Order: sequence, then structure tokens, then C-alpha cells
Amino acid sequence: MISRNVIPKLKAIVGPKNLLTTPEERWGYAYDATDREAMPEAVVFPGSAAEVAAIVRLANAHRFPVVPRGAGTGKSGGSVPIEGGVVIVLTRLNRILEISRPDLVAVVEPGVILTRLKQAVETQGLYYPPDPASADFCTIGGNVAECAGGAVAVQYGVTRDYVLGLEVVLPTGELISAGTRTMKGVVGYDLTRLFLGSEGTLGVITRITVRLVAKPAARQTLAAGFATLAAAAEAVSLILTSGLAPTALEFMDHVTLSCVKELLPFELPEGTLALLLMAVDGHPRDVEDRATRMARFCREQGANPVLRAKTPEEAEGLWRARKVISPALLKVKPHKVSEDVAVPLGAIPALIAGLQEISRRRGLIIPSYGHAGDGNIHVNVLYDRQVPGEREMANLAVEDIFTIVRKLNGTLSGEHGIGLTKAPYLGMELSEAAMALQRRIKQAFDPHNIMNPGKIFPGPAQRR
Amino acid sequence: MISRNVIPKLKAIVGPKNLLTTPEERWGYAYDATDREAMPEAVVFPGSAAEVAAIVRLANAHRFPVVPRGAGTGKSGGSVPIEGGVVIVLTRLNRILEISRPDLVAVVEPGVILTRLKQAVETQGLYYPPDPASADFCTIGGNVAECAGGAVAVQYGVTRDYVLGLEVVLPTGELISAGTRTMKGVVGYDLTRLFLGSEGTLGVITRITVRLVAKPAARQTLAAGFATLAAAAEAVSLILTSGLAPTALEFMDHVTLSCVKELLPFELPEGTLALLLMAVDGHPRDVEDRATRMARFCREQGANPVLRAKTPEEAEGLWRARKVISPALLKVKPHKVSEDVAVPLGAIPALIAGLQEISRRRGLIIPSYGHAGDGNIHVNVLYDRQVPGEREMANLAVEDIFTIVRKLNGTLSGEHGIGLTKAPYLGMELSEAAMALQRRIKQAFDPHNIMNPGKIFPGPAQRR
Repeated sequence: MISRNVIPKLKAIVGPKNLLTTPEERWGYAYDATDREAMPEAVVFPGSAAEVAAIVRLANAHRFPVVPRGAGTGKSGGSVPIEGGVVIVLTRLNRILEISRPDLVAVVEPGVILTRLKQAVETQGLYYPPDPASADFCTIGGNVAECAGGAVAVQYGVTRDYVLGLEVVLPTGELISAGTRTMKGVVGYDLTRLFLGSEGTLGVITRITVRLVAKPAARQTLAAGFATLAAAAEAVSLILTSGLAPTALEFMDHVTLSCVKELLPFELPEGTLALLLMAVDGHPRDVEDRATRMARFCREQGANPVLRAKTPEEAEGLWRARKVISPALLKVKPHKVSEDVAVPLGAIPALIAGLQEISRRRGLIIPSYGHAGDGNIHVNVLYDRQVPGEREMANLAVEDIFTIVRKLNGTLSGEHGIGLTKAPYLGMELSEAAMALQRRIKQAFDPHNIMNPGKIFPGPAQRR
Repeated sequence: MISRNVIPKLKAIVGPKNLLTTPEERWGYAYDATDREAMPEAVVFPGSAAEVAAIVRLANAHRFPVVPRGAGTGKSGGSVPIEGGVVIVLTRLNRILEISRPDLVAVVEPGVILTRLKQAVETQGLYYPPDPASADFCTIGGNVAECAGGAVAVQYGVTRDYVLGLEVVLPTGELISAGTRTMKGVVGYDLTRLFLGSEGTLGVITRITVRLVAKPAARQTLAAGFATLAAAAEAVSLILTSGLAPTALEFMDHVTLSCVKELLPFELPEGTLALLLMAVDGHPRDVEDRATRMARFCREQGANPVLRAKTPEEAEGLWRARKVISPALLKVKPHKVSEDVAVPLGAIPALIAGLQEISRRRGLIIPSYGHAGDGNIHVNVLYDRQVPGEREMANLAVEDIFTIVRKLNGTLSGEHGIGLTKAPYLGMELSEAAMALQRRIKQAFDPHNIMNPGKIFPGPAQRR
């Protein structure tokens, strides 16, 4: 519990309008896009890095947790204040400070909504590729904290690959700069990429410098239906080693398809039990050529039909259907556990087969979809809290999934992070020695363990 | 000084054939590609990760420095054993353990020569892009430790962008795995990228998993001569914002040109005072199209002549000339300080103008060349130790260079690292708070400060 005299001090830092203390107000900041929730004791909306630093210094003096938060669209409970304390919402720090065409960089505050940044740079003929499905809502600060990915990561990489420099309030209250405004840089340890994906446990990001690329001259979108999921998974592996170099390569299984099919801009024939959604970027002639080869290749792998989006609206419709999958799955069952495991590219068919086996054995619906092109599969274990034992069975299925993923040399999370929901499983991936080292790193940054405690590492956190 | 009873213990670990103790033998491991040198007290060639771990544990027990070393081609003194101790040469760990086409990864030991890896993957139609000029000699382990770049980084990125996972002997002697075999991964802190560019101060890398890409179907190489360096620098900025997306974009100034011109596969007209060397990768038709547009663009910027390599041999000749620049500059003066500053892309013309001013003011020849396409310029301050005061003047010029680079929002090193030679200048880039944090990270890894002490951080290192 934070002490009573902390609240007036918080009010003095951010002003009374930017502090929430009633349960009704605080409730909106108790949860994210997972099924976990925990009430914060106070919620603050700082208006500057200096205010963030003052809050963090206060937290150090009084030893209360601080939990940075963007839009709360996270999928691993990273912003859920599991140990109480103060949620620092960064949405007021929402300025696009600079878009530099000569330097091919943008400098932004963490509260900028991703789509706003993407649109702003596109008006200048530039492109910021990362595109998590929540792009219209999520903040760039959250993207950095979780190392968000998205569909075009197959060609363009993830958030990590675009962040050049950061300004961060350390857990000890100092404001530091990490990284560069240059394309290359190797001065000292790579703090920038250490903060990337550190899930708000190593500091509060207050400014971000990203690199931009030229907007691709053309993009084509294709969809290919398959009669079995196994056939689609096999086609993915073959496309990836074919040299066709897709920009995006997504798949949906039949449960997923059934949830979003009315959103698709065309009708799929009966018996289509899996869909591949593909994009190809580049110079117009090259794109035309590669899309044609991709379509032919899919047909050779047994796809029927293979459709090419004829208009930007058709393409947009396909991607829109893809983006709403996660909430749409709740049509099937009221609750779900979302995982985003990743496996080596060649292991995708084996993972798909394994998931089907787990689904049968546990008697649960486990739809999967997502970024097949980089082996990052979104696996959703559906359940109903009202059905006795179903939540527990879902947890067993999650363990089964992680077991097979590790057997296939995969990883527990491709882009959602460990946060709260996957912390108990961390030992399935990291050895004792690796986890001890990670804890020592955490302590080097955050000696009093005030910064987003209870995340990443298993077990309760200790304030020091 | 290492204690007398350490030598027999080292011998017991690696065997007598893999231990060097005489001054004549050790001398070969006292220096790298800089002008610094320091004698190691012993040199060992471990044959396995377990042997590396045993050596490191011994170093911890007896508190002597261990300095990992690949081929010794580093350009910042990273492998020079400035505080004595034991040099661990990793050239016996030189197996390519696996090249997986289905997974698009390779798993290698650190002592593999870069060109050997590149050739091995190319026979399978794959490509490992990083290409430092020392590719024929340097080891992949050294590439990872320094985060090596090279000419094609403009399109493909640097070593950091290809390393998925590492096996590392920590300074405390434990062997850990970091990272993944998957394309994406966000489990815990990003230790992989923390080791990338950590210059042998955080552990000894014993195994490396890199991602591979499809071998580009075609590449064209172009060269464009300019009458002034300023015009060439201006053309670089314009090419980068034109959307032409070069794969490589290198420049050479007139001193550099004079040192390598007989190696060029064509003659340049009188009055050519700067050369741009460009490559374009991709699908053959796309490459043809972009190369034509690039050539036209250069002509519009005043280039004359603009030449396209007509055969692979001509292209190879151009790149060979580029790769020997560093040693070739010693034709002009017997000694040099090599810097590899990087500036934001739009600041390249200002940097070039600044370098010319420093050269005039200090009365020194300061040729520059390198990776203009990512703002990473190799600046060489030439001097002669025999000329009284010239070495000191070179040091002043280096400070001038760093001062202007920082004024332009640039970084002290784009790809060579801080090592020994740039450690005194670290404070020009990192704040007190950032440097203190980096020292805490170092201590979290290496409590006794045995691992490559005296590197990165300014001031003498203390064994604890």
C-alpha cells in the first residue's frame, strides 16, 4: 500500500487534473488485453519527462511500485499493476516531435498512437513498418517496451529493428539517452536494445528515435485457400525457402476463418479449412512478377482458390479481417488465453500438428492464426469460466503448447512478451544461470525493485 | 601478473600444444589492426566451450584478466591485452555446425572465418550479408563481439541484425544460452543484443546462431566520379532520400583514390576528386531498372563518368579496391589513427566539410572513405612517428573530429567499437548517469572484472 502522504506529492507533480484516485477512475487502468486485472492505488498522467522522473524518484523514496502504461493493448499483462502502486499513463506525452526526411528518422514521444505515426510519415513518402494488429490504438511507447511485431515483420523486421535511440527515466530517477540518431552505432553496451522488450521493468521511455524507410512503391495482397491446415503449413515452409521473399505471410485456421469470414471481401468455397494471406512489396514491376509467381506456387501446393486483391479496398478488407481475429474469437467461447509462440521456420508443420493433437487430447478449441512467415503463431486456448474445470484444462493445454514449442527449439513468445501471464513458465526457456543473470541486470537498473514488479520473472517480487 | 602456478593449470585445461608462454610466441597476440600493443602473459587455444569455461573459472579464482580474441583484425584495440593476463584465442572453435535451409539459420563456432561462412551458405542458395572489409581474415566471433558492419549494411543491416542466438561463457564461468533459433523472440531481457558489440567484456562467445536470407538473384555495381568531394557528399544525401534504395553506397576521397586507383578496373579522368561506389541487389529486372535510374541520378548530380561494371570480374575488382583502402593509406604516411564515426544521413555533407577544415587547420592529411550510405565514415588521420609532434597533432585532430561529430548528433563509432583507442573519449557521447549504468551492467556480469578489462570504459580497471 502506498502511504497516505504520497497522494498529495503525486498531485503536486502532475497537477490535480492528472491524478486519478477514486476506485471508479482507477478501474480503467486495472487491466489490459489479457484476462488479468489488479487495481492500481493511483493513476497519474505526467506531462513531461521531468514529471516522470519526479514520480519515479518519489517511488524510490517511498518504495512503491510504478507501472508504465500506454494504451493497455498488451497481451501478456505487462501493464497490469499486480503489486498495486502507481500506474504512469504516458498518453499525454503524445507529440510527434520531428520527422526528418534528410536523416530518415522520426522523433516521437511514447504516447503517440502507432497509426498516427505511420500516417504522418507516409504523407512524406516514408514508411515506418511495424504493424501490430492493435496499430489504431496502441502507443509507440508500448511497442518499444514489448518489442511489437506484426504482419510485415517477415520482410521488414520488428520494432527492435527500427528504434535507433531512446530517452529513458531510469528506475533510480535519472533521465538518460541511449543509442543514436545514426543508422549504425556501437558505443558502449547496447542499452537501446536492452530496453526493447524489457516490458517496463528497466525504466520509463520518454522519447523515441526511429529510423524510417522509403515507402514501398507498390504492394499486392493475395489470399490462398487450402483444404487442410497441414497443407497450408507445408506451403508456408516451401514459400519461405523458395526465394519468393514475401513481405507478409499470415495464416488462419478453420475456427479463425469461421469467425471472420463475413468480413472477407470474397466468398470462400465450402471445404476451405485454412487461408494464407500474403503481401509482396517493392517496385511495381517486381511486385507484379513476384505476386504472379507466389500465386502459381500456391496453386502448385494445392491451394484453391488463389485470389489477388484487385483494388486497395479489397486488400484493405483482407487485412481488416486479419486484424479483428483476436476479439472475434470470443464469439466461439467467452474467454481465451492468447499465446504467441514462435518456432524455427521449418518446424511450422510440426507445431500445427502438435496443436491439433493437444486440442483433441484436452477437449478444447484451440484456434491458431498469425505470422506464419516468421514462425510466430498466435495460439488461442478458448474456454468458458462458467464451465467447471475448463479454465484449469486451458492452463494444462498452455503447458502442453509450451512443451512442444520448446521441443521444436521454439520460444514462448515471439512478440507479446512474458509480462505476467507467462512469467511462471520462464524456466521452460531460460536456464537457472541465465535467469540469475537477468535478475542481476534488473537489480543493476532497479535496486529497490520499484519498476513494474512481478513481471517477467516468476515468483513474487521483493521491494528492497 | 598471473601467479606462477596458473600456467600448469592452463596447460592441464588446453593441453601443452595449445598454450604459448615464450615471449616470441606471445608477441603475435599482443596487437590488432590498431597501433596499440601489450604483451599477454600467456596465450591459450581452447578446443571446446567447456575448456573456455574452465579457463574463465581459473581466472576468477586467481583474479587474472582474460581477453577473448578471434583473428585480431579489430580496429579499436579490443583484443589487445592492455592489462596482461591470458589471451583466449578462439580459432580452434572453427566448425560450421549446421546450415539449415528449412529454418534459414546457420549455427557456427566463433572461430569460423567470415568468408568461409558466406561461401558455405551461398552454395545452398543462401546469403549471410555482413561484409566487413576484413571478411577473408576476421572471425564471426569477433564480428559479433564488435557488431561488425560493412558495405551492404545500407540495405541489409549489420551483424546485430542477423544474430538470433548465442552460447556464451559468462565471466563467472557459467555457460548460458541467449536468444533463439526463431526469427522473433522477446523472452526476458535481450541478452543476445547486449552481447552484440560488448567487445569481449561480458563473456566469451562459444556458439552463434545466425539467420540467413535468400541469395539475391542479381547484383549490379556502379561507380561515379565527381569533381569535388562536396558534390559527391551532396549526391549521397540525395540518393538516400530518392527512394532508389541502394544496397551499398560507398565513397572515396581523392587521397584514398590516389592510393588505390591502379587497382580500379578502369581509368578515371583527370580531376576526379571523389568516387561513389554503389551496388543494387534484387530481382534481375528490378536491379536493371534501379541501376539505370541510379546512374541517371548520379549524372544529374554532376557525376562524370558514371560506369557500370559489365562483368562480375569488373564488379569484383571495384570491391577489391575498396577493401584494401585501409592498409593502402599507409603509402602516404607510415602511421594512422582510424576512426569510424557515424552521423545522421543528412549531416554527411557537413561532416565532410568539417573534416576538410580540421585537415587544413591541423596541417594533417585526413583521408576519408567508407559507408556513406549509412553515414558511417572511415576517417583516417595520417601521421609519422618520426616527425616530432605529429602524433600529438593527430590526437588533437581526433578530438576535433569527435567534437564536430557530436555537434552533428553523430556517434564516435559506427561499427569498430570503443575498445582501447576510443575509451578516453566515451564521455563525449555518454552522460555520467548512462556511463554509471553501463558500469553497473558490467559488474552484474563480471563482479571481479576479469573479462577484457581496460576496454570501453575510460580509466584504469580495478580487479575486485
